[in-house]
Amino acid sequence: MKAEIITIGDEILIGQTVDTNSAWIASELNIIGVDVLRITSISDKKDEIFKAIDNAKHLADIILLTGGLGPTDDDITKKTLVEYFKTELIQNKEVLNNIEQFVIRRKSSMNERNVQQANVPKNCKIINNSIGTAPGMWFEQEGRIVISMPGVPFEMKEMMSSYILPVLAKKSTNSSIVHKTILTQGCSESKLAEILENWEYNLPDVISVAYLPTPGLIKLRLTAKGKTQNLLEKLIDEQIVTLEKVIPKLICGYDSDKLEELIGRLLIKHNKTLSVAESCTGGKIAHLITSISGSSAYFAGGIIAYSNSIKENILSVSKSNLDNYGAVSKQVVEGMAEGVRKLYETDFAIATSGIAGPTGGTEDKPIGTTWIAVSNKSKVVSKKFIFGNHRGRNINFASLTAINMLRKLILEK
Amino acid sequence: MKAEIITIGDEILIGQTVDTNSAWIASELNIIGVDVLRITSISDKKDEIFKAIDNAKHLADIILLTGGLGPTDDDITKKTLVEYFKTELIQNKEVLNNIEQFVIRRKSSMNERNVQQANVPKNCKIINNSIGTAPGMWFEQEGRIVISMPGVPFEMKEMMSSYILPVLAKKSTNSSIVHKTILTQGCSESKLAEILENWEYNLPDVISVAYLPTPGLIKLRLTAKGKTQNLLEKLIDEQIVTLEKVIPKLICGYDSDKLEELIGRLLIKHNKTLSVAESCTGGKIAHLITSISGSSAYFAGGIIAYSNSIKENILSVSKSNLDNYGAVSKQVVEGMAEGVRKLYETDFAIATSGIAGPTGGTEDKPIGTTWIAVSNKSKVVSKKFIFGNHRGRNINFASLTAINMLRKLILEK
Repeated sequence: MKAEIITIGDEILIGQTVDTNSAWIASELNIIGVDVLRITSISDKKDEIFKAIDNAKHLADIILLTGGLGPTDDDITKKTLVEYFKTELIQNKEVLNNIEQFVIRRKSSMNERNVQQANVPKNCKIINNSIGTAPGMWFEQEGRIVISMPGVPFEMKEMMSSYILPVLAKKSTNSSIVHKTILTQGCSESKLAEILENWEYNLPDVISVAYLPTPGLIKLRLTAKGKTQNLLEKLIDEQIVTLEKVIPKLICGYDSDKLEELIGRLLIKHNKTLSVAESCTGGKIAHLITSISGSSAYFAGGIIAYSNSIKENILSVSKSNLDNYGAVSKQVVEGMAEGVRKLYETDFAIATSGIAGPTGGTEDKPIGTTWIAVSNKSKVVSKKFIFGNHRGRNINFASLTAINMLRKLILEK
Repeated sequence: MKAEIITIGDEILIGQTVDTNSAWIASELNIIGVDVLRITSISDKKDEIFKAIDNAKHLADIILLTGGLGPTDDDITKKTLVEYFKTELIQNKEVLNNIEQFVIRRKSSMNERNVQQANVPKNCKIINNSIGTAPGMWFEQEGRIVISMPGVPFEMKEMMSSYILPVLAKKSTNSSIVHKTILTQGCSESKLAEILENWEYNLPDVISVAYLPTPGLIKLRLTAKGKTQNLLEKLIDEQIVTLEKVIPKLICGYDSDKLEELIGRLLIKHNKTLSVAESCTGGKIAHLITSISGSSAYFAGGIIAYSNSIKENILSVSKSNLDNYGAVSKQVVEGMAEGVRKLYETDFAIATSGIAGPTGGTEDKPIGTTWIAVSNKSKVVSKKFIFGNHRGRNINFASLTAINMLRKLILEK
């Protein structure tokens, strides 16, 4: 099946918002074998929406729209679709109920605009919005599917994942596609490509590989296309087994695994607890860990120690180490890990201390210099890294690297 | 003048790359009064490029292409444009010289592909690439401009800034455009629209409004279009003054301001320091604050207190309050704020305690229930919120709401 994505909103055309929705949608559609042939961003104008859908019809079986479903007057997608599909709005009790629940939870009260959001086109299937007020709409006409979703990324992703993607995956009559993604950590893209050159050369013809660099992780996506699903799965599995032999130390997960989820599962499995002491990562590690539901079972919390006095007074880092080696040092980061582990009475601890930038570097310790330590009762492991110049990236890299070091330490046991 | 941006590359259509070029180009064109009417992403295929340019001609005076100018076989934009404009390639000495200089600077040697990059279409103006090897191309035909640039953001931006934008600005005979964005916090989109209904109704015709919801913030964008830049600016400024009277408590910033940046500036201005005690936000507030370069000047750090024992033992929250009211309560969150403020010896503190979900809710305290406190030496302010069911959103909302409560407390002084 072929798709076009149309994003609606002046904020994209004036460059105020970067359209990240399309990349996410395209990548998810790709996985279920739906090819995205074009992505178009247009303004909140009826004529433009009409023209864009008409154009897309020449190209695509599935047309996905995002944006313009909010409750305010500049949101015109719903009424435009009503006109396009020559239908009318009717109140949907289920949607109204959903909106009421949503509004009540927020201790707010229903207003006219909320009620209007429950009026939906008569001839479409409604897609429930479990985390917002604007429902999605699924139209079918002349064998073509037109889907309209909110532009808010959270809401769009929830709708795609819980309903749209599973339904489209069943309809997709393409030749079979099997994807498997391997997450690697600790090696650059070009280095990884070098290590895997021989393996890649010997791959069966039906399998292709893509290197997907993300901050802190390189993902390796294997795609097999062909007739028989079972055979493709077998071929992919064989390659995974081979890869696990070629780069055993670099592989840290599979598919949509997140490192913070993996270490959560490991800590639960081993019945262990964790605390963190963060300097340069400034709370990002704790944020990643607590973004996982259920993390309170193994995560006690942590200390963000931006100043030396906190490192010394709360984390009990030795003053002489701070004076002699500086905050960004093996001695101090190890002291931080041990300090927080004892203070929070946990089995494991992570600590970071570095220069995130863009200022603060010296000749001796340039921007990006980062010490990371992980520890348990019997051992402290620490390592120095020199990341780049970009503050946000450095914080990301350091956080994921630290979580991966913890993963390795847990697996050692 | 009206423009369309066309980005060329399969990596965008499979969702591997987020198209950030278009937003940048659109925003720069907008400033010089060029309206972007559509953004289209297409694959590296001749037919698609032909079709996209033909489509754009119906809409735009200026068509800007990015991508597909590299030295490898999948880069087909240049040869496609040669065919489209029925011209031929000729070697350009200046470009060849530029490429040679570039290759020498990288301590490499010229190869066949480098030489081919100096072959350019006969009937176009060449745009120098001062930081890469692929030159840009500027075609004019039937009063329309077609510009082709590399997809590498650095190179594209350099070409736009040093040549394309200045030339287009001179040609732009459009009416002027003035934008101003107001950031609001603490009110839903539909509620805000209700409050502003009367104001919106009385707006001058040349001004339009868009509501842009983002997690934790609603942005209100005012756009004025007309002949005279000065007059438009004056009209917009008048509306900002009115809005500041209508929703004084909701406005928390302007244009590209971020809340975490705003409180950073405020703390520096008042020479004050900050610490945080986070339970349900799990490090997100600290992460937002430390994402700002220079935050170590005012941010001492904080405590992530996921467990009750940490709240009691490290933050000195009273055990009887924890027992009597539970962790998610006014008493405990105020105790946390005061505890961390004293422990870290800072002027201000933020504390959060809530049920981020998706599990852990009770009838009394449903998922999303969150207590937030901010404090200084003379006062503790706390407030209860009930956000939604989505863990990630709740963490986001709570974090931005907390930072905004701090902003208000600082401004009270």
